[in-house]
Amino acid sequence: MVRVGIIGATGYAGGELVRLLLGHKDVDIKWYGSRSYVDQAYASVYQNMFQLVDAKCLDDNMEAMADQVDVIFTATPQGLCASLVNEEILKKVKIIDLSADFRIKDVSVYEKWYGIEHKAPQYIEEAVYGLCEVNREKVKKARLVANPGCYPTCSFLSVYPCVKEGLIDPNTIIIDAKSGTSGAGRGAKVDNLFCEVNENIKAYGVAGHRHTPEIEEQLGYAAGEPVLINFTPHLVPMQRGILVTVYASLKKDVTYEEVKAVYDKYYNDEFFVRVLNKDVCPQTRWVEGSNFVDVNFKIDPRTKRIIMMGAMDNLVKGAAGQAVQNMNLMFGFEEAEGLRMAPVFP
Amino acid sequence: MVRVGIIGATGYAGGELVRLLLGHKDVDIKWYGSRSYVDQAYASVYQNMFQLVDAKCLDDNMEAMADQVDVIFTATPQGLCASLVNEEILKKVKIIDLSADFRIKDVSVYEKWYGIEHKAPQYIEEAVYGLCEVNREKVKKARLVANPGCYPTCSFLSVYPCVKEGLIDPNTIIIDAKSGTSGAGRGAKVDNLFCEVNENIKAYGVAGHRHTPEIEEQLGYAAGEPVLINFTPHLVPMQRGILVTVYASLKKDVTYEEVKAVYDKYYNDEFFVRVLNKDVCPQTRWVEGSNFVDVNFKIDPRTKRIIMMGAMDNLVKGAAGQAVQNMNLMFGFEEAEGLRMAPVFP
Amino acid sequence: MVRVGIIGATGYAGGELVRLLLGHKDVDIKWYGSRSYVDQAYASVYQNMFQLVDAKCLDDNMEAMADQVDVIFTATPQGLCASLVNEEILKKVKIIDLSADFRIKDVSVYEKWYGIEHKAPQYIEEAVYGLCEVNREKVKKARLVANPGCYPTCSFLSVYPCVKEGLIDPNTIIIDAKSGTSGAGRGAKVDNLFCEVNENIKAYGVAGHRHTPEIEEQLGYAAGEPVLINFTPHLVPMQRGILVTVYASLKKDVTYEEVKAVYDKYYNDEFFVRVLNKDVCPQTRWVEGSNFVDVNFKIDPRTKRIIMMGAMDNLVKGAAGQAVQNMNLMFGFEEAEGLRMAPVFP
Amino acid sequence: MVRVGIIGATGYAGGELVRLLLGHKDVDIKWYGSRSYVDQAYASVYQNMFQLVDAKCLDDNMEAMADQVDVIFTATPQGLCASLVNEEILKKVKIIDLSADFRIKDVSVYEKWYGIEHKAPQYIEEAVYGLCEVNREKVKKARLVANPGCYPTCSFLSVYPCVKEGLIDPNTIIIDAKSGTSGAGRGAKVDNLFCEVNENIKAYGVAGHRHTPEIEEQLGYAAGEPVLINFTPHLVPMQRGILVTVYASLKKDVTYEEVKAVYDKYYNDEFFVRVLNKDVCPQTRWVEGSNFVDVNFKIDPRTKRIIMMGAMDNLVKGAAGQAVQNMNLMFGFEEAEGLRMAPVFP
Repeated sequence: MVRVGIIGATGYAGGELVRLLLGHKDVDIKWYGSRSYVDQAYASVYQNMFQLVDAKCLDDNMEAMADQVDVIFTATPQGLCASLVNEEILKKVKIIDLSADFRIKDVSVYEKWYGIEHKAPQYIEEAVYGLCEVNREKVKKARLVANPGCYPTCSFLSVYPCVKEGLIDPNTIIIDAKSGTSGAGRGAKVDNLFCEVNENIKAYGVAGHRHTPEIEEQLGYAAGEPVLINFTPHLVPMQRGILVTVYASLKKDVTYEEVKAVYDKYYNDEFFVRVLNKDVCPQTRWVEGSNFVDVNFKIDPRTKRIIMMGAMDNLVKGAAGQAVQNMNLMFGFEEAEGLRMAPVFP
Repeated sequence: MVRVGIIGATGYAGGELVRLLLGHKDVDIKWYGSRSYVDQAYASVYQNMFQLVDAKCLDDNMEAMADQVDVIFTATPQGLCASLVNEEILKKVKIIDLSADFRIKDVSVYEKWYGIEHKAPQYIEEAVYGLCEVNREKVKKARLVANPGCYPTCSFLSVYPCVKEGLIDPNTIIIDAKSGTSGAGRGAKVDNLFCEVNENIKAYGVAGHRHTPEIEEQLGYAAGEPVLINFTPHLVPMQRGILVTVYASLKKDVTYEEVKAVYDKYYNDEFFVRVLNKDVCPQTRWVEGSNFVDVNFKIDPRTKRIIMMGAMDNLVKGAAGQAVQNMNLMFGFEEAEGLRMAPVFP
Repeated sequence: MVRVGIIGATGYAGGELVRLLLGHKDVDIKWYGSRSYVDQAYASVYQNMFQLVDAKCLDDNMEAMADQVDVIFTATPQGLCASLVNEEILKKVKIIDLSADFRIKDVSVYEKWYGIEHKAPQYIEEAVYGLCEVNREKVKKARLVANPGCYPTCSFLSVYPCVKEGLIDPNTIIIDAKSGTSGAGRGAKVDNLFCEVNENIKAYGVAGHRHTPEIEEQLGYAAGEPVLINFTPHLVPMQRGILVTVYASLKKDVTYEEVKAVYDKYYNDEFFVRVLNKDVCPQTRWVEGSNFVDVNFKIDPRTKRIIMMGAMDNLVKGAAGQAVQNMNLMFGFEEAEGLRMAPVFP
Repeated sequence: MVRVGIIGATGYAGGELVRLLLGHKDVDIKWYGSRSYVDQAYASVYQNMFQLVDAKCLDDNMEAMADQVDVIFTATPQGLCASLVNEEILKKVKIIDLSADFRIKDVSVYEKWYGIEHKAPQYIEEAVYGLCEVNREKVKKARLVANPGCYPTCSFLSVYPCVKEGLIDPNTIIIDAKSGTSGAGRGAKVDNLFCEVNENIKAYGVAGHRHTPEIEEQLGYAAGEPVLINFTPHLVPMQRGILVTVYASLKKDVTYEEVKAVYDKYYNDEFFVRVLNKDVCPQTRWVEGSNFVDVNFKIDPRTKRIIMMGAMDNLVKGAAGQAVQNMNLMFGFEEAEGLRMAPVFP
């Protein structure tokens, strides 16, 4: 059994990690870290775990945790993981960081977009960007995995084949993304109250959202050149789910079949990426509660653009599920272990 | 492997059966029956099953099905199961009927409340009311199980200990129930459109809902005498979940501890019934996607009444989950097999 | 023009007051009081008022306000109005208090249920309980009106005719109430986040909600004797709306027509109370955004109980709308002025 | 009093027309046309109108209607208005058609995108496209007004100043639109059931939605040249509201102030178009129930694109409200008569 510690176990992503790991046959959760709820029963905070989890919440002491577990998940705001990690710890445990601390290779880009100083830049180079479908082999050997952001995961997987194969001009990419409200976290803010979110849709972070450079960096690797894009997230009155609608100019005339072949080339062997049938649009409801990403595309011959779409559960493939997928790779388990559940509908 | 056939596989309860049975290690679904979608790929109707279910929908031919499977689930409107079942079939397969056809022992009561003639009254006596927590031993030996209604399951389990132990006067029971919209089925009706259900709550079937006699019959067995109650269901703008708030007059002064002991007596060994801690009210979100029923109670010394509450996922413990629980008992599997998943939140 | 001051103008009830008063032809809002947003443009807090309201938020200084306005609405938590009001102020302005401070005549009951000391008990006797349909004449002459609670308004109007005419035993009354989330206010609390409220229903304040004694006092006046009831509120995933389902034992056999005649006797001339047609259940969607209360009832001959139902917009008839109705009476305007808008659907 | 007839009075747009016209001081609704509900009380279909509307639903006989009213609103699917209108009728009454029949000047474009033959092409030239902010003077003199589509209204008003003033390359325009579910109409379809829409977002009509040519035609007039765009609508789990997020390449470097001045030039005198303050994003909740369109923009210097945004209530400014605005112009009323209500929040 792999012994697991979680820092930030009472956030939405942390709670989802608990749910998924409870269903993983090779895992034993040893440490439910939650600074806000220390000494309270975990199941009193997340009552769905009543009679399933007996433990109390503990603090965020990563050093103490490192002596008791094999892997630590940090499901906390940016800055915390970088401020806690050190060589002593990394010699004892593997770390899967769900925050943005180790996702961006250029520390100045990180510091500019996140507005904080990076406390552990010495580990940025080593950290592996944990997009399993792309970096599988590197993840297997990693000590420190930077679990990708929710929007970047869905955005990147939706366009990756087209960029990699040079079908589109990457600098024409416009990503219009829509997310459920769990992505905004469990903090008590007026903006996230039911009466403020319900019956409403809005854009936010327009031309300035922090996931932009993360997406651009990964697209740049695929394109083989620097890429600048537009990325606009929107808040949707639903709990879970991300949908991205991506627009880009085609470099040349292509048929549906040609593009489909490109998607199949990259995703035919990927269990968690489902290329839908022709003319079927991805919908968040069809992936809810699961680790799947559904993708598809539509060519518009009138404008010579292609519209690429992807749908995903932001808390699963966009956070906790991908983290478990990374853990499976790092510990030699089957990649889908604990993640085979079908989407829940309705 | 137990081979399964489902009649009504594209309704909401049928879809949930598929989801649960796919996660059951001893089951192989052989027949996806759906009269409305014959010859269409099941995953084209329920796209969450894309690449998970390859089969096409078949018709409702119970006789043909009986030659190919070990157990048939009927997740169809009242009347259908009774019109299809016969001795030939029952000799070959076990049947778990999710409709109301075999729940009520008095055929005249059934015919009055449901307004249809019963087509197979000869099997009513034999059929076992599949409330596992109460009829476990009978279910194990049954050929034909009448899977309880959603409201009756949640209502009955919430009050059963108090009725059985004589703490309350059963004829003072008033059940005010609230249900998510999946309980109304997947039929295309104006009343169930998003814009009609959202931002709305209403009572329906006031003083005349068909689940009333089913609840009264079961309460009567527990009380040892005929019982008349009020039962009022309400439609709530959510997808899943039933909450019942039950009022009854106490026969004598009792303390919290005394009543708690009564609940514990009946439910301490029941994995799927969770008696919450003092003053914690059941909420549907804490059981969503799972087979749990959360119950609790509050004594009001001012009015000498007790308020009993229960929360449940109407599609799981209220339909498909309980049906799988019954199947597990009938085939000698562990009772919780395929049903151990933690509730999904948020 | 009547000059109006509002204390608590940025809460949900305060915002609704602003919306309604902007549409009132005889009103000029002079003071938008909001302690949390002093000096900020009101329309920057409630952006629906962009280009409709130019004013900035001011503080809660009731004495200063009294020199500039004719009537003050206090849409604030319990305790504040009582702590501010004094004789100097009441000589200058009329006050309509949307909090509970002056609703309950027995100060010890108030202090027990609300857990705070009453700071102005000398005005309790004088204050008029502003349920216009019952106390119309008293309201016209009042200096200080206690605007009724949302639950009490809907509960009382749903059962009033039956209690007043002695059709039911008032001590058998059980009120099961369901409310939208705006009733919980605009404070930033985890419990009211979208992801906590959506897809959920729960009871709260079971056997202890503060609106209980308010309802009991008013029912007592109607019954001519002290009344004890059960009242259980529930939180529903919608923004607005209250539905009450009320159960009581009939004192004698009555027909639909007899009870209908009783309702008509009390409400035929009441513009804002609509007695629905036979078998039509009140639904919150049909009153949303309006000052109407829809009521109806169903007799259950099996249990000799009557089920009475009422639906209302908690922010309008349950708060701001009733406050404007009271203002209209106090200033000699037509009672429905500014309140004639039809309900919004969907 | 202007006498009004409505064809399609029981659809969502028709219902909204009734709500708005009831609050219009110069209007008397004489004919509630609804083929599906002939002879049923209008208030039995739309119970919000109980005791406010006494009339019964009538049929769609436009000729008979023309003898009794001064203006006819057709809130029906495409094709119906064109099949009913003739010269006799147009000599007697004015017509405001909420369908697409007379919006597109090129009949072959209409017939290609809508897939039906146009039954009255002789009136296309005469019909005025009723976007009041652009065609005000023409509307005043019109006999037949083509009320704009919901998406086109919001899309066009969001980008109009930039296109008209040549700030952007119109052929780079990409419109990503999001709509509440009332836009899908009141027909009973599985796809619009609560359980299918809730907790979901999806694109539809990708690269083929019928509003595309309507938007392109109007943009073409503003640009002075033919325009090809991408337009992608999405279905959002809310009742009302449209949000558009529009991307386009800037022709040259511009500052915030320069672009703001352009928006102000076109909208400073427009009551119903609100250009928000810098960095404030339009949100559908701030316009709900009102005739306002909130617009704003953000320049992205990194990609040299501008992101333009607009929010609107699809049933008001996107349908019934704009129709009333057109009626006001056609009959010489104040343009905002009956439309001054503030947005409802929450």
